[in-house]
Amino acid sequence: MGKHGKAKRGIPPKSDFNAWYPAIVEISDLVDKRYPIKGMDVWKPYGWSTMRLIDSLTRKEMEESGHQEYNFPLLVPEDLLEKENQLVSRLKAARELGVDPSELRMDEEDSGFKKEVYWVTKGGENELDIPMFLRPTSETPMYTMFSLWVRSHADLPLKTFQIVNTFRYETKQTRSFIRVREIHFFEAHTVHKDEQGATRQIEQDAEIVQRLMKSLCMPVIVSKRPVWDTFPGAWYTTAVDAVMPNGRTLQIATYHHYRDQWAQAFDLNYEDAEGNTQNCHQTTFGMSERLLGAVVGMHGDDSGLILPPSVSPYQIILMPVAAHVNEQVIPKINDLAKELRGSGFRVHVDDRDIRPGGKHYHWEIRGAPIRLELGPRDLDANKCVLSLRTGGKIEVSLENLSQTINQYLDDISETLLNRSLNNNSELVQKFPGISSKDSGWELNSPIVDGIVYELAFDGNDADAEVLEKITGLALLGDCVEPYPESIPCAITGKLTTRKQHLARMY
Amino acid sequence: MGKHGKAKRGIPPKSDFNAWYPAIVEISDLVDKRYPIKGMDVWKPYGWSTMRLIDSLTRKEMEESGHQEYNFPLLVPEDLLEKENQLVSRLKAARELGVDPSELRMDEEDSGFKKEVYWVTKGGENELDIPMFLRPTSETPMYTMFSLWVRSHADLPLKTFQIVNTFRYETKQTRSFIRVREIHFFEAHTVHKDEQGATRQIEQDAEIVQRLMKSLCMPVIVSKRPVWDTFPGAWYTTAVDAVMPNGRTLQIATYHHYRDQWAQAFDLNYEDAEGNTQNCHQTTFGMSERLLGAVVGMHGDDSGLILPPSVSPYQIILMPVAAHVNEQVIPKINDLAKELRGSGFRVHVDDRDIRPGGKHYHWEIRGAPIRLELGPRDLDANKCVLSLRTGGKIEVSLENLSQTINQYLDDISETLLNRSLNNNSELVQKFPGISSKDSGWELNSPIVDGIVYELAFDGNDADAEVLEKITGLALLGDCVEPYPESIPCAITGKLTTRKQHLARMY
Repeated sequence: MGKHGKAKRGIPPKSDFNAWYPAIVEISDLVDKRYPIKGMDVWKPYGWSTMRLIDSLTRKEMEESGHQEYNFPLLVPEDLLEKENQLVSRLKAARELGVDPSELRMDEEDSGFKKEVYWVTKGGENELDIPMFLRPTSETPMYTMFSLWVRSHADLPLKTFQIVNTFRYETKQTRSFIRVREIHFFEAHTVHKDEQGATRQIEQDAEIVQRLMKSLCMPVIVSKRPVWDTFPGAWYTTAVDAVMPNGRTLQIATYHHYRDQWAQAFDLNYEDAEGNTQNCHQTTFGMSERLLGAVVGMHGDDSGLILPPSVSPYQIILMPVAAHVNEQVIPKINDLAKELRGSGFRVHVDDRDIRPGGKHYHWEIRGAPIRLELGPRDLDANKCVLSLRTGGKIEVSLENLSQTINQYLDDISETLLNRSLNNNSELVQKFPGISSKDSGWELNSPIVDGIVYELAFDGNDADAEVLEKITGLALLGDCVEPYPESIPCAITGKLTTRKQHLARMY
Repeated sequence: MGKHGKAKRGIPPKSDFNAWYPAIVEISDLVDKRYPIKGMDVWKPYGWSTMRLIDSLTRKEMEESGHQEYNFPLLVPEDLLEKENQLVSRLKAARELGVDPSELRMDEEDSGFKKEVYWVTKGGENELDIPMFLRPTSETPMYTMFSLWVRSHADLPLKTFQIVNTFRYETKQTRSFIRVREIHFFEAHTVHKDEQGATRQIEQDAEIVQRLMKSLCMPVIVSKRPVWDTFPGAWYTTAVDAVMPNGRTLQIATYHHYRDQWAQAFDLNYEDAEGNTQNCHQTTFGMSERLLGAVVGMHGDDSGLILPPSVSPYQIILMPVAAHVNEQVIPKINDLAKELRGSGFRVHVDDRDIRPGGKHYHWEIRGAPIRLELGPRDLDANKCVLSLRTGGKIEVSLENLSQTINQYLDDISETLLNRSLNNNSELVQKFPGISSKDSGWELNSPIVDGIVYELAFDGNDADAEVLEKITGLALLGDCVEPYPESIPCAITGKLTTRKQHLARMY
């Protein structure tokens, strides 16, 4: 830890992010990593409660946008996978050969998917006739059922989602929330009459993500992924990346326009108003516990977590001080708790018989937005002391306390967003450019570890490969916010508004 | 269906319960059973929403009783099972030999458990070093962690719960909610300083179950299970049975007092205030989607489901009538919906452009407690028409509508409970008694299919075996509500207040 300075209370400094992150998720009581399977952590109540609050935000968005919540089985029989494999291998081969998928023969099977899942092969002491895998995502089980449910245009659009556990046989190093083997997962799947219907859904997904990110005080980069990084079977993939303090980007949401590619594989069609059979068009939208990982990584500091008020299990911690001096302190604290709960806040009264310093430490590490102290003198003066987790200690009146608290919670959210924007403006820098030399391409100045590079890019796949190879970074794809005016492409020099990013991705 | 009369709208009559139940769970849109693995149904939005409302009732009880929600991994490495197997085989052998468990050698392994779980043996294309099973319940994963968490008496009591998917390699015939292979499961696990602490928890569990059953309008039989039907490793098991209309009992909740038997196996101990190491005492409390199965089976009728207001996704369906005649009908319906939602009711406006009969049919099958119709004439008279799913059509004023609705929802709950009590009084009858003849025991009159028999029983295990063999039924165990006065035991003739039941269990 030398270069990063001394650990505070056993927490590595956040400047040493790769040490800070794995430490803080346990110290702040979100998870316990000692469960004897790597990448499968135990969710502790504080972590699970935070995750469930994130889920609540998602569910609210789903309800308001007319999605309905389903719950599909976890296990998928291997033979259901055939259709998916054929689809994926066809599209992959088509992409490699640069031809239309429909021109291909279906004689090659891509087993890539099979390498990434857990297999259930035995029930009791019996070998199963057909092995089953634990869903990594639910296209296959869902579309098998969708093709039974969708008959006519009146059945469309079909807008579904579920929040479930999914699994991935992960061989890379695992990290809590960020790369795990049992994944707390949200997936929305929709079916539409035509491409336009699916496109409108993708637009709605984009708006939902924007609102969710705002609730989480999280600036993000939204990009249309390059074709080689598109989800199997998708026409195009839009991905949402958060920049972590170590300069690595974390993909926290994706939405995919499938056109009718999956529908063809799963015989998902409908009878239109004229009695003709039409293929459906589909979209998916996925997020996961990575949202929590991004919240932890983006907002925390040397002293612990800082949770956005929208998802903090307790927004206000009430602490009686010197309650033995005045027996009115505890009843007043309980009254305030009741008042604040009545106003819809999530409140916790910490009346443990320990020193105030211990309580502060406890809730600082856990990132509770506001601590409220009330002692005998405060009681006399009809006031209390608020400590904001983002900094600052303020005396406020007990009159209109809910309104005051509301204002400070808004301030905290704003502070978190502004801090993140500031951090991003340091972490995301202009690409230094490359030049063509006799010996080939050369960087104009060296790539710095921990930086995301922004650049104008309008080249082809070969140009992209040059960029990725010389930088050792990955292109995130076309940013949905292009440059307001054309500037020269970093490779071709052609004027373009296409903004892209080069980053090391998680 | 001959003897049961004609099916109504494609629904078999409820008197033919074994046909009615599997039909109604699909017709009412709770699940779709066409998923290609038997015993793993797809939860449709209406069913999932009802289940989540049942979960909400449970979560509320957990919160109020000081339990915290965790989420443990689904997969359990086989080697963790050793401790559990040793415990179970020791207790089982001790029971068979009639000796104290501590006197036994640990050289016999019971593989019974292994026969009932699904095994993950492969990750991708690799055989796993240690096979993992899908949790059927979480003693093993939880207690492995508890032994890391509990150090001193200050850590106790530890009161945990989770609501998760569990799995059972079920070889018997599957039935939606009642016997499935992926189970939506609630499990509470608590750790206490001593036997008394655990006993108090069991008492609290009993109270929680009583409140939940009241919310579900469900009379139940609560029994301390006979020793041969006690959960492995438990000191004693209390089980809650609902009597289904076919006279079979459905076990819908259990709570177990473990004393320190599991704690010994998992090295779960603590340092007391004097610095001595003490074994912990434990309890568990389990419920599942069977709660929904019981709700469906107990309350439904020939026309479909009847959902108790506490867990009905929509408590009130608002239906505009002849809205084309008066353009004020729709705005008024929307106002009423807003008003009722503001009062905390779950409300759905069915403004589909179909005939009122179609809407009635739709919501009758789905068991919505109240349908509210409002047409032009109602508007003029400032009234509306309520149809109660339990029967009755009433004109009510639009003044104080929330209050009126509240009263009718209470009436519906009361009606459901009273109907169920009446049904139970027909389904549960006095045991005819048996007599000792030269040729052995004989029933005084034949056992009738579909009846639960109540009896005074104070015999030993051999007597119980006689009873079960001659009736072909199972003893549910000592009912927690004994007879108020002693009556003769059905076998021994000794006076006893011990009430028991003989039933065919699901």
